[in-house]
Amino acid sequence: MSGPVSSTYLTFDIGGTKVASGFVTLPIAADGTPAVTGRCEMPTEAARGGDDLRERIVALAVRQLERAAAEGLTIAGVGIAAAGVPDSETGVIVAATDILPGWCGQRIYDAFARVTDLPVRMIGDVGAHGLGEASYGAGRGKSVVLSIGVGTGIGGAIVTDGMLFTGAHGVAGHAGHVPSALGRGFPCSCGTREGHIEPVASGTGLKDLYNRRCEAMRAGETTTADGDGGVPEPVAGGADVAARASAGEALACEVLADSARALGECIGGMGNLVDPDVIVVSGSVVKAGPIWWDALRAGFAESALALVKSTPLVEGELGGDAPLIGAAVAAQHHEQSR
Amino acid sequence: MSGPVSSTYLTFDIGGTKVASGFVTLPIAADGTPAVTGRCEMPTEAARGGDDLRERIVALAVRQLERAAAEGLTIAGVGIAAAGVPDSETGVIVAATDILPGWCGQRIYDAFARVTDLPVRMIGDVGAHGLGEASYGAGRGKSVVLSIGVGTGIGGAIVTDGMLFTGAHGVAGHAGHVPSALGRGFPCSCGTREGHIEPVASGTGLKDLYNRRCEAMRAGETTTADGDGGVPEPVAGGADVAARASAGEALACEVLADSARALGECIGGMGNLVDPDVIVVSGSVVKAGPIWWDALRAGFAESALALVKSTPLVEGELGGDAPLIGAAVAAQHHEQSR
Repeated sequence: MSGPVSSTYLTFDIGGTKVASGFVTLPIAADGTPAVTGRCEMPTEAARGGDDLRERIVALAVRQLERAAAEGLTIAGVGIAAAGVPDSETGVIVAATDILPGWCGQRIYDAFARVTDLPVRMIGDVGAHGLGEASYGAGRGKSVVLSIGVGTGIGGAIVTDGMLFTGAHGVAGHAGHVPSALGRGFPCSCGTREGHIEPVASGTGLKDLYNRRCEAMRAGETTTADGDGGVPEPVAGGADVAARASAGEALACEVLADSARALGECIGGMGNLVDPDVIVVSGSVVKAGPIWWDALRAGFAESALALVKSTPLVEGELGGDAPLIGAAVAAQHHEQSR
Repeated sequence: MSGPVSSTYLTFDIGGTKVASGFVTLPIAADGTPAVTGRCEMPTEAARGGDDLRERIVALAVRQLERAAAEGLTIAGVGIAAAGVPDSETGVIVAATDILPGWCGQRIYDAFARVTDLPVRMIGDVGAHGLGEASYGAGRGKSVVLSIGVGTGIGGAIVTDGMLFTGAHGVAGHAGHVPSALGRGFPCSCGTREGHIEPVASGTGLKDLYNRRCEAMRAGETTTADGDGGVPEPVAGGADVAARASAGEALACEVLADSARALGECIGGMGNLVDPDVIVVSGSVVKAGPIWWDALRAGFAESALALVKSTPLVEGELGGDAPLIGAAVAAQHHEQSR
């Protein structure tokens, strides 16, 4: 019996720092063959504006299509994982933060139509990440996958029976914007100060939580658990908190554990609402080590209902390839539904 | 052109206090004809145990089927909205709280099969409520409906394209078990004390929050906003808090507003995760009046993302009929998928 017919997609992952592209052939072989080939990247240079970014992406697509032709690769379609909130039907970016000025309103399908007749499908980058993990990564074979990305910000995706659940406005999965007591008083990227989890549990949030506690110690309001009286210097990023925790610094350990526990409690609440088969956690912060993971799992177990407690909370497997793979899956779904 | 073929279902709503039954003919006419006929109720008498309850429900079913036959009604199937977590495939109650001792483990389909050949479909009562509202109530015509029930406890349901989303273990929709800063230190029905919204925003929660603040006032720790120094007497239930708030009592107004605002923030977080077209709020507490609704909407707006803020937050329309109607819808779906 022959295997399923394979198709190759040209994919893009458009983020605030860089734009990645590559060819993804589905289904992905389980034999360890690299899932993404023809990789290339360019800096986003967000300050140059949305029009400029759109045109550079289209130019990159032209180069990639030429490359595919030169290599004898037949491209079945284009899959795009985009920062912001894209409308997958119209190909328009309907919302974006200040990280990408002028990105909101960009008409991506129209721009691609000028250079290729291939079908183009665009979904959100966090959704693409979740769709990739659910299809070929840590969530493969599961019916309901909750994917949580913990990096500069916190995002997420719900994938049911292999399909990305996008909700009424394409917003579904915004896992960083749920209430958390720890987040009170920390301004969230969405504008609220009433206490979302993102501003204290993202990479940026770890830094802010740490630095605020440093300030409080300096002001004499609190001491660390070891009470040695020395006030650490502020950190520049979440990775510094993880590094200091690995080196045994009390404040860093405390911040890492408090942050991960609060996030775990929120994930427990999301688990109670969505009841997934598996929860896949990805992003730079998941590399913070066992203090973080232990506290995350403890918070989850504390908040999850009896039937949800046993839901596996696992690390993503696809790393930076996940959004490209998910974009290819979205392009394939779109092709199959036409 | 003739209308759609109609079918009548025998339905049950099995709760902690009472078991309701009635005939529901789908589709429900929009002309104001009562949606539920042949209504009858019996007390649950939970203390008599799960076996006894199961047998009394089956006996009630026999009487209702005889009544249908006597009235010349053809019954197409049986729909059951059950307290606890039922497995809709096997007809077994897989989880239940202490409110219904011995209910967990009951084999409902097997019990019905002894007295009728009709197809039987059982879903959770909170899910049935949401399915009813989504199909024929405040969520009709919408693609993604988030239903929140705020009564003795807090539950919920997610309905997508007319189908109840039950998750991996039939637990999806447990909207009361999400983190809230206000809930810290209040024991939740699920066991956590880390702060879920249910123990401070359900009817019981309103009472507990009020009485705890009374105690604090009595202990001289706090005063109410009007600072008149008089400490109110404790209340017996959430409705008393609403009544005292309507009468202008400062503590009751404060408790009602704080509770509803915290719930609204949680609903905002759930909206960010699920991105529904409409959020339907039902249950005894929604009758608490404008202080409660205004605070609920303010908390929601504070927590919801820009694209989610405009999602309507509306009161359920079907009242106590919702679970019976939802059970009929579930029975019809099951019949159509066979």
